[in-house]
Amino acid sequence: MIQMNIKTKDKNKLENETENQDDQVSQLRQDIASGDWVVIATGRAKRPDDFAKFERVKDDKGIDQCLFEDPVTSGQEKDVLIYTDKDGHWSLRVFPNKFPAVSSAVIAKAISEGPYFSMPGVGFHEIVVTRDHFKQLALMNVLEVAEVFDAFQERYLDLMNKKNVSYIAIFHNHGKEVGASIPHPHSQIIAIPVVAPYVKLELDGAQLYHKSNQHCVYCVMSEYESDCEKRVVFENEEFIAFCPFASRSAFEVWVMPKKHSPYFERITDTEKIKLAEVFSKSLNAIYTALNDPPYNFYIHTAPCDGKDYPYFHWHIEILPHTAIWAGFELETGIEISTIQPEVAAEYLRKQISNR
Amino acid sequence: MIQMNIKTKDKNKLENETENQDDQVSQLRQDIASGDWVVIATGRAKRPDDFAKFERVKDDKGIDQCLFEDPVTSGQEKDVLIYTDKDGHWSLRVFPNKFPAVSSAVIAKAISEGPYFSMPGVGFHEIVVTRDHFKQLALMNVLEVAEVFDAFQERYLDLMNKKNVSYIAIFHNHGKEVGASIPHPHSQIIAIPVVAPYVKLELDGAQLYHKSNQHCVYCVMSEYESDCEKRVVFENEEFIAFCPFASRSAFEVWVMPKKHSPYFERITDTEKIKLAEVFSKSLNAIYTALNDPPYNFYIHTAPCDGKDYPYFHWHIEILPHTAIWAGFELETGIEISTIQPEVAAEYLRKQISNR
Repeated sequence: MIQMNIKTKDKNKLENETENQDDQVSQLRQDIASGDWVVIATGRAKRPDDFAKFERVKDDKGIDQCLFEDPVTSGQEKDVLIYTDKDGHWSLRVFPNKFPAVSSAVIAKAISEGPYFSMPGVGFHEIVVTRDHFKQLALMNVLEVAEVFDAFQERYLDLMNKKNVSYIAIFHNHGKEVGASIPHPHSQIIAIPVVAPYVKLELDGAQLYHKSNQHCVYCVMSEYESDCEKRVVFENEEFIAFCPFASRSAFEVWVMPKKHSPYFERITDTEKIKLAEVFSKSLNAIYTALNDPPYNFYIHTAPCDGKDYPYFHWHIEILPHTAIWAGFELETGIEISTIQPEVAAEYLRKQISNR
Repeated sequence: MIQMNIKTKDKNKLENETENQDDQVSQLRQDIASGDWVVIATGRAKRPDDFAKFERVKDDKGIDQCLFEDPVTSGQEKDVLIYTDKDGHWSLRVFPNKFPAVSSAVIAKAISEGPYFSMPGVGFHEIVVTRDHFKQLALMNVLEVAEVFDAFQERYLDLMNKKNVSYIAIFHNHGKEVGASIPHPHSQIIAIPVVAPYVKLELDGAQLYHKSNQHCVYCVMSEYESDCEKRVVFENEEFIAFCPFASRSAFEVWVMPKKHSPYFERITDTEKIKLAEVFSKSLNAIYTALNDPPYNFYIHTAPCDGKDYPYFHWHIEILPHTAIWAGFELETGIEISTIQPEVAAEYLRKQISNR
């Protein structure tokens, strides 16, 4: 982690200095957890309205040919989880991916070739499908969203005890532009035998911060954001959604429990409803503000590799697809964002208060 | 860096085991320098031909409205470097970007806001333009490509001595899909006050490898690749191009000096010609194999922050745009590639031998 060495100064003075930066060409901001840098290029800035240019994602095959409309007859694998509504119709189902990135059918065994290492792609790859072809997550009500998180948790609790599972990735792609090859709303769960490198960066950063400051870096972040308000999108007693100080993409939103917890899978039913409220308000605000943009979201939670991660703090990252990763981002890992998170958050808040 | 703990076994036995993996669902491979993981998803594999589906990049504005055709009259900033041909016409010019991501007009000063850090986006952002609107790098001859590397070196040597410059990013975007907003062939140079996080990952990995093995990890890699041949695209006495064992994208190619050197800017004129040969053969092979795909390339070289990096080894990474970063990649940093680097390299070699 790259950490800047700055002495603490008078808070008001600092805020003034920060304000004065607004008219400068750009700002380099550091993510205090991962150590990542971003460029907020206000010299290339757009107004919030300029981002709302997306064509709605077209479902070109139509509902008749949808592979997830009736998963059983379209030849998907057998469900590992199914939820039904009060009339006995399925409302959500989870089944193994027919074209998995990793598979439980192989034997986990380290292989070396010359100086290199590899291992068979052992793991689990599942699809979480909700019933309504036309109702994307951003349009679901709180209880419908909570049911999706129920399924994530239930599958997580099962998969974490399987052999060779060290990390469970839970993510959602909305829009062809960001990898959703089937338009029917669905999330994915991939359980892998290694800790995800991006999560490792956050784990290492959180551990280092905890060692230096005796505080969880994400608790510090969520408390500060709730206090200063300018980057908050929505919050209730249990959860807060905000545009992170070092946003990598325009209109990026993080959703975080206010209570310290490293492990998503330990969320209670009451907390899940509170989470669903903050999450669905935020996602709907993005949907409205940017005219149904493509987006990805995922959960960053502590690994399930048998170790303890008391210094970590699980959260959700929502990344609307508003820019292209070009050579600079690919070379450096520093993303250039063209709107200040403070301006993005204000615009998102407006969508919520206008409803 | 995540390192697998594997005992060295009999080499032949290992190679056989590796061969047997080919029919399995997928492989997890580790980049021994950066510690990154990739998934080579052979279960979702495509044949090499399947990748050659790109529409050629359309120059929708046409040459008349090109801002780089005649940079002076179209209001670009004053040149910082200009090369002319034997007739006195310009063949290459470098000028500051009119819409810079970072700027030398601001004062470098660390700013804190609550728990966060930022600094003004101080630095230099320049554009390197070659004369012919229609001749992209992949179609240039060796001397023309060498001239581009001449310009990179000359600007690097100037910028590295400027105040607040710790890393100089040199990159090229080809195609609107990967960020080239102006179709006229051009590269970019961005000098920044922090070490790029992705470069830091490689630096740390190379340092750790050197400590454990008393060898440069990239020297080990280039020697092994040259010996075993199967991932080599093209090589001469001085440089080697190969598809890396842990390729992040299909048809990814790295170009590397065979002689150990941390610093791109110390390349000699003779070496530059050798580099241009290997680089242009590789880029042309990608152009032919994938039907003029969008791509990015960039140079990873040691920082110019006043420290020594004897364990590092500069190289170029070429990333054709053959896939979308979806939720899994964004969450984990693990990329899923759908073709084995060995198959990609064989296909690229075929383009070169068919010419």
